[in-house]
Amino acid sequence: MMSERYRRGVDVVQHLSSGSLERFLKTSRIAEVAPDFARMVVEFAFGDLYSREALSYRDREIVAIASLASLGHASPQLRTHVEAAQKLGLSKSEIVEILMQIAIYSGLPASLNALADCHDLLAEGDCVACTSHS
Amino acid sequence: MMSERYRRGVDVVQHLSSGSLERFLKTSRIAEVAPDFARMVVEFAFGDLYSREALSYRDREIVAIASLASLGHASPQLRTHVEAAQKLGLSKSEIVEILMQIAIYSGLPASLNALADCHDLLAEGDCVACTSHS
Amino acid sequence: MMSERYRRGVDVVQHLSSGSLERFLKTSRIAEVAPDFARMVVEFAFGDLYSREALSYRDREIVAIASLASLGHASPQLRTHVEAAQKLGLSKSEIVEILMQIAIYSGLPASLNALADCHDLLAEGDCVACTSHS
Amino acid sequence: MMSERYRRGVDVVQHLSSGSLERFLKTSRIAEVAPDFARMVVEFAFGDLYSREALSYRDREIVAIASLASLGHASPQLRTHVEAAQKLGLSKSEIVEILMQIAIYSGLPASLNALADCHDLLAEGDCVACTSHS
Amino acid sequence: MMSERYRRGVDVVQHLSSGSLERFLKTSRIAEVAPDFARMVVEFAFGDLYSREALSYRDREIVAIASLASLGHASPQLRTHVEAAQKLGLSKSEIVEILMQIAIYSGLPASLNALADCHDLLAEGDCVACTSHS
Amino acid sequence: MMSERYRRGVDVVQHLSSGSLERFLKTSRIAEVAPDFARMVVEFAFGDLYSREALSYRDREIVAIASLASLGHASPQLRTHVEAAQKLGLSKSEIVEILMQIAIYSGLPASLNALADCHDLLAEGDCVACTSHS
Repeated sequence: MMSERYRRGVDVVQHLSSGSLERFLKTSRIAEVAPDFARMVVEFAFGDLYSREALSYRDREIVAIASLASLGHASPQLRTHVEAAQKLGLSKSEIVEILMQIAIYSGLPASLNALADCHDLLAEGDCVACTSHS
Repeated sequence: MMSERYRRGVDVVQHLSSGSLERFLKTSRIAEVAPDFARMVVEFAFGDLYSREALSYRDREIVAIASLASLGHASPQLRTHVEAAQKLGLSKSEIVEILMQIAIYSGLPASLNALADCHDLLAEGDCVACTSHS
Repeated sequence: MMSERYRRGVDVVQHLSSGSLERFLKTSRIAEVAPDFARMVVEFAFGDLYSREALSYRDREIVAIASLASLGHASPQLRTHVEAAQKLGLSKSEIVEILMQIAIYSGLPASLNALADCHDLLAEGDCVACTSHS
Repeated sequence: MMSERYRRGVDVVQHLSSGSLERFLKTSRIAEVAPDFARMVVEFAFGDLYSREALSYRDREIVAIASLASLGHASPQLRTHVEAAQKLGLSKSEIVEILMQIAIYSGLPASLNALADCHDLLAEGDCVACTSHS
Repeated sequence: MMSERYRRGVDVVQHLSSGSLERFLKTSRIAEVAPDFARMVVEFAFGDLYSREALSYRDREIVAIASLASLGHASPQLRTHVEAAQKLGLSKSEIVEILMQIAIYSGLPASLNALADCHDLLAEGDCVACTSHS
Repeated sequence: MMSERYRRGVDVVQHLSSGSLERFLKTSRIAEVAPDFARMVVEFAFGDLYSREALSYRDREIVAIASLASLGHASPQLRTHVEAAQKLGLSKSEIVEILMQIAIYSGLPASLNALADCHDLLAEGDCVACTSHS
């Protein structure tokens, strides 16, 4: 008895990620201590919001990366979306450019730390998910 | 003896805005108490970062709106970029969608307050800057 | 075709508030520019989370007030929940105490500004919603 | 020549914790570089505020957990209060519920990261402090 | 039966301000809804911390202005300290310079909005408190 | 073809640090994924702002430490500036005092975590950079 929203959310997640979101949810073991919340995250973030057609997935990943990097405390989520963005076709240099631009609004440390946190995902040659794009 | 960066920044500002950025800088009278800083903002934000070609102006406005709304304390700057985004062709419903999506990362109040702060710019029929787009 | 979650959320909202939440949603005119989001707020915040039985409404209002005051940028939402908390039976002095305690974690300005923003709701003799409790 | 406030603070700390606060203050070696500050923390947070009778210890722990999780940068303090809350009788599922609810106000990452940071304290079977409660 | 800490705090406040702190505490009517907190603020912030000799009052005002402007949600407190700083001899251009520098760490909006919030205190010719310094 | 601003920035960096900034920029490998940004950081933060004469380097380090500690998410940058501050002559006890004072504005956790993050730099006897000062 999965909700329609959950099913829609799972479809979005599978489209976006090459496993990294599932991995995050499992690694952090959210599902173990808060199984209902793991479901709600999928339903609300992906089933309700991401699946709306008013914005493309590519644009939504720009929103996610800009917002998460600006917060300064969301490194695991930022990494997940940097991977998803690459799978959707955003190039490494476009993502680097987004992380540079948020320095204007959130300061240089937020920007520098985001670039450092995602270094391995943004350096040349080490993105598994994006071989066909970069 | 304007710097090349300043000239480039002013070009970007004029392209982006229909006067709202100039108005903001004047209204808040930054130039009166910190004239060098008003110049540096144009040079760094627009001359250095916005003018780089790795990201389109349209994508940069998505970054600006997502980042500023997530901060929760940048209402004047958010309004400026909501106007600029419309001038560049982002529709009201796309901007509303960006402000809805950041609720995932920054919480519902940041999102609700951003929508309230920009209500007059996002309601039907009252955007002067974007008559040719919406 | 209201969702079950929406109906449940509306029930919670009506139980919690004496109209202040409805008023907020209308005053800020969120519903005008983002009608789907107004619905989602009710569904996610109240239909999904608030309605869960693992925590009483009274405890949930303590969570809401502590979290919103700590953010420092959520004054309209803080006021809404200070009213709701009083309707549920939290006394003015308990709410003042919560707002004092968050100074430990979020600093004195967040605490002082929350007390100032809610001054009219917390001063003696001017709470309409809570006549039977205080 | 301990102050009365310090003595009162130490009493509160000992009542709340099964050693975790003392451990934190020692582990982070605050006392080594800022001995006066370690004392002031006990005096102000516990001697002045926590010891006031207007709110029960249980309610104060709800405030502490909601506020600390919302900040997003206070993981060591959050863990300390999750332990204290359990010692005072809050169940694991009540604490999980608080951490879920703050997602409404502070966003999903603050909530997910708080749940991940406290995973070992909230999973079944591994809380030493709370054997008599859970 | 004022505490020694309170008396020391009041001395510091009177030395720092030309009435603006008292005015703030009264205007915001904190004392009305939370009289104990108004006292604790004086005791903790001024009696305990400000009065310590390890840092001069002038240096402490630099700390206060830099920290408050970085938060982005503490405009009333920022104004109070900008006035106090001028009374202690910091020039308008030094204060402007502090507010410019925090743009590096907290982003341009925090800096621009701090300059705008304190415009009347930093413009030439309108500081009552600092006639002997500027 | 280094810009004049870059050259000026590098001079400031070399004056301030005993290699720690260079080390940070290299360790975090910002230069690898975002070489232009590494250059802009030097130009904007040090070439444009730090090099202005309206504030001494010593005062600027007080601003940097107070602002970075208040943010709560800028530990690598905070450490860099704690080292630079010592090189410029701020004593360990002055820096500890700054980190204590920001508790007033940003809360105790930001302050405690900053002290913990810089523990090795602030404990007696282990600062290489500051042998001639402390």
